[in-house]
Amino acid sequence: MKVKWKYSYLKKDINEIESTLHKVVNSSQPILKNASVQLLESGGKRIRPVFVLLSAKFGQYNLQSIKNVAATLEIIHMASLVHDDVIDEASLRRGKPTINSTYNDRVAMYAGDFLFAKALECMSEIEIPLAHQKLSETILEICLGEIEQIKDKYNFDQNLKCYLRRIKRKTALLISASCEIGAIASGASPAFQKCLKDYGYYLGMSFQIMDDILDFTASEKELGKPSGSDLIQGNITLPVLFAMNDLAFKEKIESVYEGIDPETVKPLINQIRKSTYIKAARKVSEAYLQKSLNSINSLPNSEAKEMLILIAKNIGNRKN
Amino acid sequence: MKVKWKYSYLKKDINEIESTLHKVVNSSQPILKNASVQLLESGGKRIRPVFVLLSAKFGQYNLQSIKNVAATLEIIHMASLVHDDVIDEASLRRGKPTINSTYNDRVAMYAGDFLFAKALECMSEIEIPLAHQKLSETILEICLGEIEQIKDKYNFDQNLKCYLRRIKRKTALLISASCEIGAIASGASPAFQKCLKDYGYYLGMSFQIMDDILDFTASEKELGKPSGSDLIQGNITLPVLFAMNDLAFKEKIESVYEGIDPETVKPLINQIRKSTYIKAARKVSEAYLQKSLNSINSLPNSEAKEMLILIAKNIGNRKN
Repeated sequence: MKVKWKYSYLKKDINEIESTLHKVVNSSQPILKNASVQLLESGGKRIRPVFVLLSAKFGQYNLQSIKNVAATLEIIHMASLVHDDVIDEASLRRGKPTINSTYNDRVAMYAGDFLFAKALECMSEIEIPLAHQKLSETILEICLGEIEQIKDKYNFDQNLKCYLRRIKRKTALLISASCEIGAIASGASPAFQKCLKDYGYYLGMSFQIMDDILDFTASEKELGKPSGSDLIQGNITLPVLFAMNDLAFKEKIESVYEGIDPETVKPLINQIRKSTYIKAARKVSEAYLQKSLNSINSLPNSEAKEMLILIAKNIGNRKN
Repeated sequence: MKVKWKYSYLKKDINEIESTLHKVVNSSQPILKNASVQLLESGGKRIRPVFVLLSAKFGQYNLQSIKNVAATLEIIHMASLVHDDVIDEASLRRGKPTINSTYNDRVAMYAGDFLFAKALECMSEIEIPLAHQKLSETILEICLGEIEQIKDKYNFDQNLKCYLRRIKRKTALLISASCEIGAIASGASPAFQKCLKDYGYYLGMSFQIMDDILDFTASEKELGKPSGSDLIQGNITLPVLFAMNDLAFKEKIESVYEGIDPETVKPLINQIRKSTYIKAARKVSEAYLQKSLNSINSLPNSEAKEMLILIAKNIGNRKN
């Protein structure tokens, strides 16, 4: 989700978030320090902090207070990535070695816990109970999603509802929470909070569906990993769900199971890539995108609103 | 840390905490539900909730509000046990199968995350910023301790300071936080908060040292695991630290390394059990206990204070 910083809007503030992030994850414990800095410097688009800041613009914007919320949301995202990499046995993340591969699963588990705790410490600066309640609700739902995701792997009988609930918990909830908590923490009106929460939710759904499409259609170079990795790892995404309406295809795909040679899956990946199912999935992503834009229709015109629209449109056109 | 409920004091309130715990960890997700209930029903002495309640007695005691704090502290303790069992590859906890052994490490990792998130959700009912700050500071220190503990295993060159810092993070901090946050949440005076915090800290230190002694001196039946398990797993505790002042013994003990046949360690365990080092360690535990009692000297006389004293004295005499 790359964003062109039109008019360099917010650029200074984003730089401040970056240095806050470095300060927050710092530790006198050398393993944790190295692991966290490695994770921070491997990039990431800091899209959650951006949403926190933009949403805060609809209340009393105060960078010194809102930057803690922005850092919290990004660090929670980082913590969940660290634990997910253990589960997925991933050796690379954004082209850099993961913590589980550099050290081991145990260090990665505790490093994730550490980041999580750092996020809470950072958030404890904010003295608005509603913000804390929304954050803990969100984290809880994400945890539930993580367990469900283990269960859903290689389950070829799941339906659309199951997929949508999974991507909601995997992606949409934290983006939605970034927008909503940004609005709450800056004292934006409840009506604005609701608009921004919905915007984030629909945008997150659109974004993840597009991500799942690109996993088939983008090149290995664009993805930084082999095309069709999701299917190879047993993750049933929207294009696959659509493709399985063709029962002959479903039969073929059911032979894909954990531990199978990825080469065997390649013809199936190619078949999906060229299919109309990609187009159908794209339509779903676009529908969510439109809902996202509609959600903020009633917000007052401002640079922040313009940026939110720009980011949403960017997602529709992205290539990786 | 079994406590005789003199005059059945607090018994009704503790029952209420028990049902709160069951309500809080409940989940519609079957794996998480089973895992959490299994953990709850495997017992545990609920000593952290007891400290929360007793400390709250020094402010405006309100069970309906304080029960959330009590449940939070116990669930954080449970979450850390689940992750520790993954690290230690433990198959039994309080005589019941651990989550990692019933399911696998992945489920246990996310189950720990889930419990942690549940604890936060429970705590978000409390609208006192200071309570949240103390809690997040505590969790952070505990996480740091967990990483250090991995590093310290089989490190025979560690000193007393290193050991004390480790047991502080492993045990004393969460007990201290239970007392302090119980006092904060009930609006007890800052002076009372400090007394109770210190009491919990010193008591936790004394308790853990006694635990480390009993690991050598108690029978397999009393412990529910082989005597000397700590040393077999490479955990250097106070009796071992003292024993290593004898350089001949140190040399022998350094041959104990990961993966060694536990039978080889048995003579060393027997040697420590019968040594004066046990007595020396017991003296340290007693000194902490005395400090713990001194900390609450200035608290007003009350049933709660009596219970705190009773619990402390109980620790000095416990057999398992």
